[in-house]
Amino acid sequence: MLQLSKFPFKTLKSAPKVSDNKSTSLLLQGWYIRQAMAGAYEFLPMGQRVLHNIEQVIRKEMDDAGYHEMLMTILTPREYWETTNRWEIPEYFKVPGHGSTEYRIAPTNEENVTPILGEFIQSYKDLPTCVYHIQKKFRNEKRAKSGLLRGREFIMKDAYSFHANVEDFDVFYAEVKKVYMRCFDNLWLWADTVIADADGGAISDKNSHEFQTYLSVWEDIIVSDSSGYCYNLELASGVPDDKNISESEHTMEYIDSVPEIVNMDKMTKYFDAPNWQMLKTVVYKLERLGKYIAVAIRGDLDINEIKLRKFIAEKYDDTFVLANESDLEALGTVRGFISPLSDSNLNLECYADESLKTVKNFFGGANAIAKSTKNVNISDLAISEFWDFSEPIEGFTSIHVPGEKLVFKKASEVGNIFHLGTKYSKPFGLSYLDENNKMQDEVQMWCYGIGVSRLMGVMAEYFMTEKGIAWPDHIAPYSYYIIVMWENNLDAARKIAEDLEKSGETVILDDRMGRKDWFWQKAGDCELWGIPNRIVISPKTLELWGYELLIRGKKEEIIEI
Amino acid sequence: MLQLSKFPFKTLKSAPKVSDNKSTSLLLQGWYIRQAMAGAYEFLPMGQRVLHNIEQVIRKEMDDAGYHEMLMTILTPREYWETTNRWEIPEYFKVPGHGSTEYRIAPTNEENVTPILGEFIQSYKDLPTCVYHIQKKFRNEKRAKSGLLRGREFIMKDAYSFHANVEDFDVFYAEVKKVYMRCFDNLWLWADTVIADADGGAISDKNSHEFQTYLSVWEDIIVSDSSGYCYNLELASGVPDDKNISESEHTMEYIDSVPEIVNMDKMTKYFDAPNWQMLKTVVYKLERLGKYIAVAIRGDLDINEIKLRKFIAEKYDDTFVLANESDLEALGTVRGFISPLSDSNLNLECYADESLKTVKNFFGGANAIAKSTKNVNISDLAISEFWDFSEPIEGFTSIHVPGEKLVFKKASEVGNIFHLGTKYSKPFGLSYLDENNKMQDEVQMWCYGIGVSRLMGVMAEYFMTEKGIAWPDHIAPYSYYIIVMWENNLDAARKIAEDLEKSGETVILDDRMGRKDWFWQKAGDCELWGIPNRIVISPKTLELWGYELLIRGKKEEIIEI
Repeated sequence: MLQLSKFPFKTLKSAPKVSDNKSTSLLLQGWYIRQAMAGAYEFLPMGQRVLHNIEQVIRKEMDDAGYHEMLMTILTPREYWETTNRWEIPEYFKVPGHGSTEYRIAPTNEENVTPILGEFIQSYKDLPTCVYHIQKKFRNEKRAKSGLLRGREFIMKDAYSFHANVEDFDVFYAEVKKVYMRCFDNLWLWADTVIADADGGAISDKNSHEFQTYLSVWEDIIVSDSSGYCYNLELASGVPDDKNISESEHTMEYIDSVPEIVNMDKMTKYFDAPNWQMLKTVVYKLERLGKYIAVAIRGDLDINEIKLRKFIAEKYDDTFVLANESDLEALGTVRGFISPLSDSNLNLECYADESLKTVKNFFGGANAIAKSTKNVNISDLAISEFWDFSEPIEGFTSIHVPGEKLVFKKASEVGNIFHLGTKYSKPFGLSYLDENNKMQDEVQMWCYGIGVSRLMGVMAEYFMTEKGIAWPDHIAPYSYYIIVMWENNLDAARKIAEDLEKSGETVILDDRMGRKDWFWQKAGDCELWGIPNRIVISPKTLELWGYELLIRGKKEEIIEI
Repeated sequence: MLQLSKFPFKTLKSAPKVSDNKSTSLLLQGWYIRQAMAGAYEFLPMGQRVLHNIEQVIRKEMDDAGYHEMLMTILTPREYWETTNRWEIPEYFKVPGHGSTEYRIAPTNEENVTPILGEFIQSYKDLPTCVYHIQKKFRNEKRAKSGLLRGREFIMKDAYSFHANVEDFDVFYAEVKKVYMRCFDNLWLWADTVIADADGGAISDKNSHEFQTYLSVWEDIIVSDSSGYCYNLELASGVPDDKNISESEHTMEYIDSVPEIVNMDKMTKYFDAPNWQMLKTVVYKLERLGKYIAVAIRGDLDINEIKLRKFIAEKYDDTFVLANESDLEALGTVRGFISPLSDSNLNLECYADESLKTVKNFFGGANAIAKSTKNVNISDLAISEFWDFSEPIEGFTSIHVPGEKLVFKKASEVGNIFHLGTKYSKPFGLSYLDENNKMQDEVQMWCYGIGVSRLMGVMAEYFMTEKGIAWPDHIAPYSYYIIVMWENNLDAARKIAEDLEKSGETVILDDRMGRKDWFWQKAGDCELWGIPNRIVISPKTLELWGYELLIRGKKEEIIEI
């Protein structure tokens, strides 16, 4: 049993202010964690117990699924990262050794696991296979923030699976998803955790998913509808809401304006019309071809660069940058007044977002400084193709359930699944003999992450009360908290603690005596640490022949002893 | 249960040759570990299980003793190390961050734990207190070697205790020693593990101990006698054995020799006499005083620099370096022929090791090139004082048990206890209010280390057999290994495995079928992985209505099913 009078514990009188969330304040106040430096936290005894309990839930699910635990190195040789062309990444630390030797402290372990499994995988019979480990990772974040959420040092469970082909993975993946669901279910997060399709980065847009827990603070926005559609905002699509679509089209007019109206805000004010009635046009330069294209969109919307990247990759097999001032001049237009008007003869291809169809009589530019247009309609524009370029906003409707408004919710990522393809297996030369004894060199890889220390931060936020963190019973640092009010009752309290321990419970005995340790401080620490069962033993309860038991969410009762 | 046909396991056909020990070869052969780079090993699934089991034994003893587990950071701010003046240590890694920021990946965690506990310790009532953590550490070793024994990345259990004074520690320490003993006892190492007094480095020579396990390979030499005396060789003392002490003393003679005899080997050959009959004299310069001293010792012995350091510190409050050629010339002598002869009038103080009293009629130098002396005796020398400067060698006797020869045994360090004093608590400004409400700023610290990954290497060597590692039952990666010889017996084998698992056992089912998986390969893997209980199920055993069970160290028996 933990005797508070002897334990290196501490709670702070008040919660330190942390910029963007209250749960980090509570974690600091409860001496669960202590900042060693920006982005690196010490887990103090109370925090270490919570962390360990979270880790054990994840470990159990991984083990039960038959994925084997390993422990890969933190220090990795430079050659590993040169093999995969990832040595020069500014967010990854380089560590000088002796002479000109350099190492890396691993931010992720694809470069370890691939050569290891490469040594094992010889035959198609060895596939699929999956291993995992739980260990600290390191990233040279420019600005570490949000307590345990984005650190320079953090604990990850990372699993890696190896497959003969994508079809083989499909079967495997259905199982992994269930394993992940069970993890989050056993952490009592499942009700508010969704599987969102995610941007798989450069490698793949298939079979990459994020597990996101809805929380009113922090980073990601998840867009969903009742059909089960669920996407990270950066990948979401929706149907733009109709604006003044029932108005009749007027004839376009050229008008003089002012040089200052080079952005939507200024245009909106100047023309005294809603921002959605402004016509926004952006010009991009294709990097390989040297050609230019324009994209027109409703003034209240933004062009989603991921969608644009895919569009340009598919159509032109190319990448893009924003056109600069001299590019625009050569094209016969000028920043702030670009408009793909049919009669302007701009030397570029123009594409338009579907949202243009929801508005009549736009205000727009006229390709010269202080020259504008009003009552612009689609028929006035030289558009080659309509496409979905926009990032949805509140008001957009579902593409699957006609008329249903999309739901936007803030969320925090707790897990992810990425398709790595052959990005790592090829450079490390993985190969195997197939059923026909033929050498195959296409080993497909996936990785599966759960941020363990991050989860502690997410759970703190999720289970936070006014004065503490109401951890799930099996995650709380201890299961019972015994408040002793009078020195003479200590023996009785110890006896209760011993009996509880015999039955498998973990017990904090708050045996602190003295002026400062009033009942409310003891009760406060119990709540701050989220201990689910509170016992009070005092002359008053002993008068009733027992102690008072308060189980979280229930009413106090007297238990006879 | 682990089904070998599906598991990412591997054993190598033969043990890779490793320079200095066989157990590392076996660990590599059994795919317990795999080298990522010199000094950093991946723990593969089998190795991770062994590591975890060792860790759990240590964790349990720490927890039972009431020391609380934490998890400190690996990445530490430069300021921590500047506070204790340890930033510039070449064996400690520096990690560049953004701009001019630098971090350190911790080689040890005094710099973390001291400010943490400093926040906690307010009153004498908070002392003593003790915390620990189990985590990877990093050292920039010039040459990493010996498999898991000396790595750039390794796992340590490090505990730290804080005390009001040294007396308080004495009580505490008796308990820690018992906890350590229980650890090594529970790892089945106790019979060959001793507590050796150790060099506490610059801080203290009191209460610093090493736990050393006797092993015929590797590093340390432990010197002991039957009185309980037990020291690391570098700190040991003994009584030099008498040589020709019964000979009568002859008159010293000056003789011509040759310029080449500048070391003991060459002198021994030239004079055709035993090396113990050579007189060795070394001259040192005192760094602060600028004075010179000489130390004379028997030719077969070495001057122990730790003893010399203490002697000079006590006598002169100074440190020393070896005198160079021009120093010697100025003193009126020359390298290779130094001799503190009474009639030479060398301008220095000369001390002599006790071993000079065990020899008569030395051969020595005469303070000029190719000039020597024979029949030198103590009366011919200008010696101010005799002292114990020598490192004991075989033949020395005990200083406690007269006449008893000292025992020299090779050993490997598995744990240690260091007195840190106030080296860390002072710079971090630790203080507390004592019983009289007076502020005290002398917080005494001790640290307690157990090398967890190192222990795996030591245990592999200790429990090694010809073909594998006979781990203690609770350390072995699995408790049962079932060999199935025929596909038709698989169902019966699975049933046995399930029953064993229900009773809490961990089971490897060797269900590999096919040409290469003959019985002896299966049995070999079982031995390599040190699984203590082996079951064979085959048509032959089923004819006897059962399976064959082989418990390590016993005879096979048939268990009916």
